[in-house]
Amino acid sequence: MRLTKSTDIALRMAMRLAVLDDTRHAPTTREVAEAIQVPYTHAAKVVSRLRHLGVVEARRGRGGGLSLTTAGRTGSLGHLVRQLEGVGDVVGCEDDPPCPLRAACRLRGALRVAQEAFFAALDPLSIGDLVETPTGPLLLSLTPRPES
Amino acid sequence: MRLTKSTDIALRMAMRLAVLDDTRHAPTTREVAEAIQVPYTHAAKVVSRLRHLGVVEARRGRGGGLSLTTAGRTGSLGHLVRQLEGVGDVVGCEDDPPCPLRAACRLRGALRVAQEAFFAALDPLSIGDLVETPTGPLLLSLTPRPES
Repeated sequence: MRLTKSTDIALRMAMRLAVLDDTRHAPTTREVAEAIQVPYTHAAKVVSRLRHLGVVEARRGRGGGLSLTTAGRTGSLGHLVRQLEGVGDVVGCEDDPPCPLRAACRLRGALRVAQEAFFAALDPLSIGDLVETPTGPLLLSLTPRPES
Repeated sequence: MRLTKSTDIALRMAMRLAVLDDTRHAPTTREVAEAIQVPYTHAAKVVSRLRHLGVVEARRGRGGGLSLTTAGRTGSLGHLVRQLEGVGDVVGCEDDPPCPLRAACRLRGALRVAQEAFFAALDPLSIGDLVETPTGPLLLSLTPRPES
C-alpha cells in the first residue's frame, strides 16, 4: 500500500518550508529538493501543485523564494492528502482491461470506506503538527542550511 | 493511493472461489484467471500465496481444483489485506536513498496510524460478505462458467 511519490515529496517539502519559515529564510525549490534529497525536476512539479492548492507561495526577486502559507501550515493534513492523492480506487477497477465486477462490487465499496478511514485519521493533524520536536530540529539541521 | 496488484488479484480470486464453492465446482487457476481477466502467471503466484496463508486449498486429480477454505471465507478481510500488503511504510522512508527524516519523523508515525485505520475498516468484513448480492450473482455469471 503506497501513496504516490508526488504526495510523499509534497509533504516533506511542506515540512521543510514550515521549519524554514520560523528562520525567515525563503529557500529556492532547488534548496528544498537538495535538503530532503529528492530530484529537482520532481520537486519543481510538486511546488507548482502546492502553489495551485494554496499551500505554498513563491516570491520573486531578491529575498524571494518559497514559503508555506498560513493555510498550508494549519490546514487539515487529511484534506491535503486527499487533494494530492485524489479519491480514485485503490485497486485497478477502471484499468485496462477494467475489472468485470466494477459495476456491482462490494469490494470496491469496502475499499472506498477504508480509504476514507485513512484520510480521516490524518484530519486532526496539520503540517505544523508534523514539525514539532523531534522532527522540526532534524528538518532544520539538513543541508543546505539556511544562512544564519 | 494504491494496493499492490497482487492484493487486488488475490481478493478477486478469493471472491470467485467463494461463489463457485456454492456450486461445488473446483476450478483450475487458469479458469479463475480467465473469469476475472487477469494474467495466468500472476494468478498462479497469487494462488501459491493464498495457499500459504491458508485461504485457498488445491486438490489434485480428477474432480480436483481450487477451493476457498472456511477460514478464507469467514476470516477478517482486514487481517487478510494486512498479510497480503505487509505493514511497510506507505511512502519511501527506507527507499534508496532513504529519507533523511526517517529516524524521527512525525509524518511516518501519522501515516502508520492512517494505514492501520485503513486495515481496521476492513476488519468487520469477510470474503463471504463481499460475495453477497449483487456481487455474488455477477461473479457467478462470468465466463468460463462452471459446468452445470
